[in-house]
Amino acid sequence: MGKVVTLGEIMLRFSTQTGHRLTQSEQLQAHYGGAEANVGISLANFGHEVVFASKVPDNGLGEAVRKHLQRYRVNTDFLLTGGNRLGTYYLETGIGERAAAVIYDRTGSSFAEMDTLEWDLSELFHEVDLFHLSGITPALSPKWQTLTLDLVKQARKAGCKISFDVNYRGKLWSQAQAGHFLKQILSYVDYCSAGILDAVHLLGITATPTADENSTAFYYQCMKQVFPTIEVFYSTKRIVHSASANDLTGTLWIAGQYYESELHELDPIIDRVGGGDAFSGGVLHGLLEKMEPQAIIDFATAAAALKHTVHGDCNQFTQAEVEQFLAAGSGKINR
Amino acid sequence: MGKVVTLGEIMLRFSTQTGHRLTQSEQLQAHYGGAEANVGISLANFGHEVVFASKVPDNGLGEAVRKHLQRYRVNTDFLLTGGNRLGTYYLETGIGERAAAVIYDRTGSSFAEMDTLEWDLSELFHEVDLFHLSGITPALSPKWQTLTLDLVKQARKAGCKISFDVNYRGKLWSQAQAGHFLKQILSYVDYCSAGILDAVHLLGITATPTADENSTAFYYQCMKQVFPTIEVFYSTKRIVHSASANDLTGTLWIAGQYYESELHELDPIIDRVGGGDAFSGGVLHGLLEKMEPQAIIDFATAAAALKHTVHGDCNQFTQAEVEQFLAAGSGKINR
Amino acid sequence: MGKVVTLGEIMLRFSTQTGHRLTQSEQLQAHYGGAEANVGISLANFGHEVVFASKVPDNGLGEAVRKHLQRYRVNTDFLLTGGNRLGTYYLETGIGERAAAVIYDRTGSSFAEMDTLEWDLSELFHEVDLFHLSGITPALSPKWQTLTLDLVKQARKAGCKISFDVNYRGKLWSQAQAGHFLKQILSYVDYCSAGILDAVHLLGITATPTADENSTAFYYQCMKQVFPTIEVFYSTKRIVHSASANDLTGTLWIAGQYYESELHELDPIIDRVGGGDAFSGGVLHGLLEKMEPQAIIDFATAAAALKHTVHGDCNQFTQAEVEQFLAAGSGKINR
Amino acid sequence: MGKVVTLGEIMLRFSTQTGHRLTQSEQLQAHYGGAEANVGISLANFGHEVVFASKVPDNGLGEAVRKHLQRYRVNTDFLLTGGNRLGTYYLETGIGERAAAVIYDRTGSSFAEMDTLEWDLSELFHEVDLFHLSGITPALSPKWQTLTLDLVKQARKAGCKISFDVNYRGKLWSQAQAGHFLKQILSYVDYCSAGILDAVHLLGITATPTADENSTAFYYQCMKQVFPTIEVFYSTKRIVHSASANDLTGTLWIAGQYYESELHELDPIIDRVGGGDAFSGGVLHGLLEKMEPQAIIDFATAAAALKHTVHGDCNQFTQAEVEQFLAAGSGKINR
Amino acid sequence: MGKVVTLGEIMLRFSTQTGHRLTQSEQLQAHYGGAEANVGISLANFGHEVVFASKVPDNGLGEAVRKHLQRYRVNTDFLLTGGNRLGTYYLETGIGERAAAVIYDRTGSSFAEMDTLEWDLSELFHEVDLFHLSGITPALSPKWQTLTLDLVKQARKAGCKISFDVNYRGKLWSQAQAGHFLKQILSYVDYCSAGILDAVHLLGITATPTADENSTAFYYQCMKQVFPTIEVFYSTKRIVHSASANDLTGTLWIAGQYYESELHELDPIIDRVGGGDAFSGGVLHGLLEKMEPQAIIDFATAAAALKHTVHGDCNQFTQAEVEQFLAAGSGKINR
Amino acid sequence: MGKVVTLGEIMLRFSTQTGHRLTQSEQLQAHYGGAEANVGISLANFGHEVVFASKVPDNGLGEAVRKHLQRYRVNTDFLLTGGNRLGTYYLETGIGERAAAVIYDRTGSSFAEMDTLEWDLSELFHEVDLFHLSGITPALSPKWQTLTLDLVKQARKAGCKISFDVNYRGKLWSQAQAGHFLKQILSYVDYCSAGILDAVHLLGITATPTADENSTAFYYQCMKQVFPTIEVFYSTKRIVHSASANDLTGTLWIAGQYYESELHELDPIIDRVGGGDAFSGGVLHGLLEKMEPQAIIDFATAAAALKHTVHGDCNQFTQAEVEQFLAAGSGKINR
Repeated sequence: MGKVVTLGEIMLRFSTQTGHRLTQSEQLQAHYGGAEANVGISLANFGHEVVFASKVPDNGLGEAVRKHLQRYRVNTDFLLTGGNRLGTYYLETGIGERAAAVIYDRTGSSFAEMDTLEWDLSELFHEVDLFHLSGITPALSPKWQTLTLDLVKQARKAGCKISFDVNYRGKLWSQAQAGHFLKQILSYVDYCSAGILDAVHLLGITATPTADENSTAFYYQCMKQVFPTIEVFYSTKRIVHSASANDLTGTLWIAGQYYESELHELDPIIDRVGGGDAFSGGVLHGLLEKMEPQAIIDFATAAAALKHTVHGDCNQFTQAEVEQFLAAGSGKINR
Repeated sequence: MGKVVTLGEIMLRFSTQTGHRLTQSEQLQAHYGGAEANVGISLANFGHEVVFASKVPDNGLGEAVRKHLQRYRVNTDFLLTGGNRLGTYYLETGIGERAAAVIYDRTGSSFAEMDTLEWDLSELFHEVDLFHLSGITPALSPKWQTLTLDLVKQARKAGCKISFDVNYRGKLWSQAQAGHFLKQILSYVDYCSAGILDAVHLLGITATPTADENSTAFYYQCMKQVFPTIEVFYSTKRIVHSASANDLTGTLWIAGQYYESELHELDPIIDRVGGGDAFSGGVLHGLLEKMEPQAIIDFATAAAALKHTVHGDCNQFTQAEVEQFLAAGSGKINR
Repeated sequence: MGKVVTLGEIMLRFSTQTGHRLTQSEQLQAHYGGAEANVGISLANFGHEVVFASKVPDNGLGEAVRKHLQRYRVNTDFLLTGGNRLGTYYLETGIGERAAAVIYDRTGSSFAEMDTLEWDLSELFHEVDLFHLSGITPALSPKWQTLTLDLVKQARKAGCKISFDVNYRGKLWSQAQAGHFLKQILSYVDYCSAGILDAVHLLGITATPTADENSTAFYYQCMKQVFPTIEVFYSTKRIVHSASANDLTGTLWIAGQYYESELHELDPIIDRVGGGDAFSGGVLHGLLEKMEPQAIIDFATAAAALKHTVHGDCNQFTQAEVEQFLAAGSGKINR
Repeated sequence: MGKVVTLGEIMLRFSTQTGHRLTQSEQLQAHYGGAEANVGISLANFGHEVVFASKVPDNGLGEAVRKHLQRYRVNTDFLLTGGNRLGTYYLETGIGERAAAVIYDRTGSSFAEMDTLEWDLSELFHEVDLFHLSGITPALSPKWQTLTLDLVKQARKAGCKISFDVNYRGKLWSQAQAGHFLKQILSYVDYCSAGILDAVHLLGITATPTADENSTAFYYQCMKQVFPTIEVFYSTKRIVHSASANDLTGTLWIAGQYYESELHELDPIIDRVGGGDAFSGGVLHGLLEKMEPQAIIDFATAAAALKHTVHGDCNQFTQAEVEQFLAAGSGKINR
Repeated sequence: MGKVVTLGEIMLRFSTQTGHRLTQSEQLQAHYGGAEANVGISLANFGHEVVFASKVPDNGLGEAVRKHLQRYRVNTDFLLTGGNRLGTYYLETGIGERAAAVIYDRTGSSFAEMDTLEWDLSELFHEVDLFHLSGITPALSPKWQTLTLDLVKQARKAGCKISFDVNYRGKLWSQAQAGHFLKQILSYVDYCSAGILDAVHLLGITATPTADENSTAFYYQCMKQVFPTIEVFYSTKRIVHSASANDLTGTLWIAGQYYESELHELDPIIDRVGGGDAFSGGVLHGLLEKMEPQAIIDFATAAAALKHTVHGDCNQFTQAEVEQFLAAGSGKINR
Repeated sequence: MGKVVTLGEIMLRFSTQTGHRLTQSEQLQAHYGGAEANVGISLANFGHEVVFASKVPDNGLGEAVRKHLQRYRVNTDFLLTGGNRLGTYYLETGIGERAAAVIYDRTGSSFAEMDTLEWDLSELFHEVDLFHLSGITPALSPKWQTLTLDLVKQARKAGCKISFDVNYRGKLWSQAQAGHFLKQILSYVDYCSAGILDAVHLLGITATPTADENSTAFYYQCMKQVFPTIEVFYSTKRIVHSASANDLTGTLWIAGQYYESELHELDPIIDRVGGGDAFSGGVLHGLLEKMEPQAIIDFATAAAALKHTVHGDCNQFTQAEVEQFLAAGSGKINR
């Protein structure tokens, strides 16, 4: 098993109960999560030694974040305390034809307001195999774009593999801003989660696949040509029948070859938030464990499918449980 | 935006939680609603000035009704207090193959027991664009049949458009009784919600469409011939796959033309009660706003579809939210 | 209506709420049930006089079991108290692709530890039409295999029809052990619930149907040849699309003829536990009432389908409600 | 143990959760109860054979009543079905200084509307030791006053002891009406629950105790002189500090002697409804078991005190549990 | 009845359930409230025409605020939408010896960030009898100190009585800052809620009462001398036995006379938040209705006591209910 | 801060909700806890490095235990997996006069069934300052008595201080058995939690204090004479007014001096389970930190008092929070 650092913002999510609008909700479900924290928890569940680095306020909410992470045996020695607030957001849970709706209230959070790298980086990256971060962090502020680049360079220097999830959020920055930044950072990246839309709208890939090419494979190939350091591309393809029923397929590009998982019919979906992070966690686990590519993408997609069956941002299944799920097929009681 | 009066009974609904029978329920959900109140709330949500006229007992339940309506900015100046009780009913929520089951306990309610029109009608209908009521009210008692006709005549005299939803309830009166009454009232009606079954079983339309005619359009046309004052017919077609999954299409007949919405796949259904009222609210909004017929039926059916995704009798979506839903398609998170 | 005795273990089931893993659950739903108790409750709901014989500890949990049975008018005069504990198990509820998971904690229960038949059997079987038990009981211990045979012989001697549900549980005994025992007991049985897998893996039927034979009918026929006392075979065929969606068909073999119900699409499933017992209850009701075979299998499968729509182990529908469900088709509100 | 019949109305109570007003409650707790049913359940819990006679509608609510009673092993063979509705009431739960508030909605219930005694009385009273009823029943209608007298006379003729709880409800009839009726019925009564207020305001006792007399004992003595058939008087004295804290003392007059229990400090009170019925159940148990008077009043008051610690109308404690509570004193964990 | 404007910030409060720490809470109760909104709702409940002026974001939380106010018939025509966020805070509910704990997250709210008076003040104050605001508003920013003074001057010019609740919050500004501001504003105030601590620590009253003077009356008198425009002073005295049990007494100074209510024993307390606002609402109602001073302080303190018995920030009792509570004394069921 | 090992059984507790009996509970609260685990969590919350050693089954319940401990940063490297089951017990929560009731179902647990010390003791006790265990462990089996003595001897040899909480459980062993064992182990103990009843009934102290001696101090002195290695005695005195209201005082004997805390009025009590463990945690923290004796007992009793205000077995307050509570007094909101 490997040693991993993930770094990013972690927030408090308030969700409505299914079938209730936010305006009528007298109680809200509280979950803590963030893309990088979620990946970290997945990897800890799969047996890796994981450090999550972030910053939270020095109050009960910051303490709740810490306890949430510790519960899954994620190391919180680099979870700084200070600053003004924990970022929050409100999720009006979708159902059937009605999509979920999000209200962000994350401005001014302890993490977003950081303007220096307050961690001891030599300690943070000491003997670390993999450093994972996402495009949400540089989207928080111009300052964080600089800091993110610094982090990646330092991690690389310390010998870590760099894993980066593009994770574009249109509410935080424009496609032009994101594209500009991505072109800088992707030269330092080893494993990259990005999809067709990212290739076209952020990275400016203008070539198009022929009718009989696999589109995803095509764009992975194009991105590889622009960013030759990247060894692995991966992302999911999701067909959204409704907020309650999606089809999910995982895709992976490694060493010039393209792999796809079987399609998972997610119906009904309990909680979609964190599904992509569970997938990333699965892929990174496979890479750390040097699994076969097909096994990696099968495992990762199964992990993502399982995430959709539980409330909360983080995947709660061990390596053994994911493998048993893959082996068993769908829906039978074992008794 | 227009000024609207809706008038009818409003009741307390007790619903079981999904998967529980009434006999085993230790707690019940309490919702307030009635066909005309629900239409009123929809129209208020869409920005119209709405008065709901009714009568409730002078106790905490009557007060709860008042607060429920006020919450949506429905004017309650014509919500009288007095009489003996608030009508109630029990809904054992359906699921999958098992249909919902209803126990009515509405006899003797403050509204049903009214035997004069206790409102100042000249004040009630002052500068009102639209008066909406339904066939549930005359079904309550012979007295209410007389009063309903009086109301409609007075409203018409005051210059209101008359909107009438047939809303046949077999537990309240026979088809013969309903048919007899409908034939009287429909001569005063401008906008009428009625379906094929109403045409055949209540209004005695015996003609039948040819194989290549649209049945709904055919019956609208037949009813138009009998009741020439009616300018608009509308209703929904519902295919019931199960209590949890229905397909819904809206139909509209206006100025000799027939319009249909796209089909909405409602799956899963959170709460079906009030779905038809949300549809009526949408149609009436479109008529008040003089929208194009196709836009009206699309809007109204979208509103009805959204209603099925929330608990409670009333639609809780603004005009902007319905339009955004129409534009966005199904089930994606916006973040 | 008949007089029936069912006998077996009854346990406390702890279930998670949908979408929660056991490890994260701060509250668990408590249901009492067992295959034979569930069948007993179904038969009591259908109007039969039912005695449930078992043994529970002399504490609040034993008392809860008693009250649970009494609620459905099941006679508890033969529910002994004593011994050490009530058996329990934990059900992590499945959803979509993720199957339910069970942790048994039933060792050492008051019932399992019995080593003599502590009931007065002449009183227990006095004027009883039907004695029902299942293969779970002999699986509890070698002692219980002996006791089960004794019970069946005595019941038969007292003039009861013997109903036996194979109900193989791989966590309790091996296929070889079960097969050995079954071969002894099935010579005393009149009505037997067993499926293809039981025939092949437990009873060692090695013949195989031809391509155009109905497999289920074929194996019923084979078992009939081995165990000629058995008059009736029945079981369900279940296609598991996911933990939330199954297709269910009932099958019945009686007097040399094979019958099948229509297929029920169970979607969504609220609680699958006890679905088979509801089916058995329906079949036994039909046999006691001497209904036509096709009516029996239709009724029983409808009862099983309804069970899947309610929480808890036991079916909660009366004969009239099952019949109305059969007549009404799927999912419409009656109002 | 004895055989007991209790007879009266049973209703559905909707209670708010503590700290919520009725107007703001989105869910309500559902409990079934009535004075005579509650006494019956207490006596069944104490080991007696109890029949509860009443009438409920033939729907899910009537069935819920039946199951509620059966749960406690109360015989429901004389629970008739028919009529229009189950009476209901709404209880806004009190807390601290704020008293509970009640809205009755019981008019027109299946029981209240009865106008003949639909039970086979010779069967109902066959070998019955004790017939218990209350002043709520004759308060329902003039017809029920006649029927109540008939019942008591027939029961007496059949050899039952008659137990009557005055239970005056000012919302159902006036003091004058009640007094007039009581003077008729009390000549047929053996055991009577009545307090000082009943003596003064309903029975017109004008004598007053001297300063050093026990008031309760004084009025019992006065009532005995007017109604010489009554062997036993009993009632509770309650000091209401707040809705959450009461002091309770039981009083008993038997064979010319007056007895009092120790004072119970009820703090906090979970649910006060049914406290008096639990007390009556305790007294009647003591009388049936021919316990010593002091033991009777201690037992009955302990039973009443325990009732205040559980939700719902009915006492849920066995004879052994009440006795253990009496022996143990207050509030220690046994482990 | 009068016409009243209240103006201030309204926030979303997240409360834990009793007995749960914030760090362990998986769901939080959501209540909307603010000192001035709460006073407004109380006055609306007492029958006055109330406008609440504030600013909330244009999202579902802002809409929830609007619906919350409308429910109580508070006019929201001056509830502006815009800005970045709704202020929130977290309340870890206290119990027994453990006090409640608060985490504020209100910086940057739509209201706090206002830097001009965006309302049409001539319209806002048109024919208004009373304008109520509190010391929380100027504490939000230096800008708001200026705006607050402007508001008060304009309101006074428009002929409104000015009501000001000092409501000092040490987490928002220092005593010196508050004192400096108060000395400016109190010259424009007619009715002032302030207590001994305010007089001593904010207004710099250095005189001290003699041993036989009533301290509260003494300080009211001192403040009157400094701010001669103030006609009425009022505040509560609270003895905190624990978070669950307080004693509350209301005090009032008017026309040179001092009045006190009886002491209310609040035990247990359901929710203390908004207790002071309910008191202010009661006093202002009494002043608007020109009640006798003793009646005013009795009514206001009763209203405050009742507030402590319900969840949420706002008092939910009508004038009639408060009066009935005053008349009835403590804790008896009315049935 | 110190390094601490605690060792013992950890169980799953099922609690009823307040005001519900076990027999009527449809859901139960699940908490994990055990005396030694609870002490460990307290010490971890106070900043110490804590290892909890135990054994749990290799299933979801064992995993839930692990996550529960990790959440509080308790090291679970010595939490073995294996064996048959997790011990459970049922707590019917007490209220007012009604005491809590417990049903144990702990026989055959993975921990209780251990018959060798499966941990590497040299690793377990490496550089550990304090080893804490309780009298519950040796009460589980004769085998465990031997193992407990072995553990203590080895720990002592490794240089740990030994802390032992007598924690007598009459349902597990007799006073004679306990006394016999205690006399062996107490010669190896440094810090001992034992009270008067332990001294008299288990250790056979027959001397009695004079009227003007402090009884607790007297018995501590007596025990010191018998077990001279013990440096510190401590326990709480609890006056049980009711299940909802207790008075609690902490007592401490150290270096020949006796200390008492102030009395804490615990009213209402949310959850009493673990109160004693929170106290032990506080004392051991004080000893590890070499606080002054009076400060130790004040801190420990405050910690115990706080525990009674939260659900669950374990104290959830940091050192800073306990100190702030001590400083602040009772029940005021800080805002």
